[in-house]
Amino acid sequence: MDFVTILGLTAGTLTTIAFFPQLLKVWQSKSARDISLTWLITFSSGILLWLFYGISVNGLPIILSNSITLALTLVILYFKFKFG
Amino acid sequence: MDFVTILGLTAGTLTTIAFFPQLLKVWQSKSARDISLTWLITFSSGILLWLFYGISVNGLPIILSNSITLALTLVILYFKFKFG
Repeated sequence: MDFVTILGLTAGTLTTIAFFPQLLKVWQSKSARDISLTWLITFSSGILLWLFYGISVNGLPIILSNSITLALTLVILYFKFKFG
Repeated sequence: MDFVTILGLTAGTLTTIAFFPQLLKVWQSKSARDISLTWLITFSSGILLWLFYGISVNGLPIILSNSITLALTLVILYFKFKFG
């Protein structure tokens, strides 16, 4: 695997795993007040399109990272509606 | 421009512009309490690597969208330290 591919995979891993502590924080504090609903909806919509893009170009790392990110942002969105 | 490229550009635009309302919210409320510092640092680091990746593959849309996203998340990070 070449350096650029490793760079891309590392980037994708970081921008994906980043959402675990955010999800945990909202779940523990039972508050998502400072998280913008517009951010959540726009960002999740963009991630869904990245997922379709990944499927279109048959890019497994894009499909994997965006599936996980989308799942995590949708749970945060659920908490946003639940906790406010 | 083919459909897949338009799909990718739309996805990149959405995941980038999403950060404007989040930045505005934190700035207006003077609070970033519910935003995870670990998320901010991990996500920004990942975006920085995506930027290096974009430069490596000479991908202008990747460079553009990640430059703007990085600038926005760094301002949110500044507000996180400033407002808590």
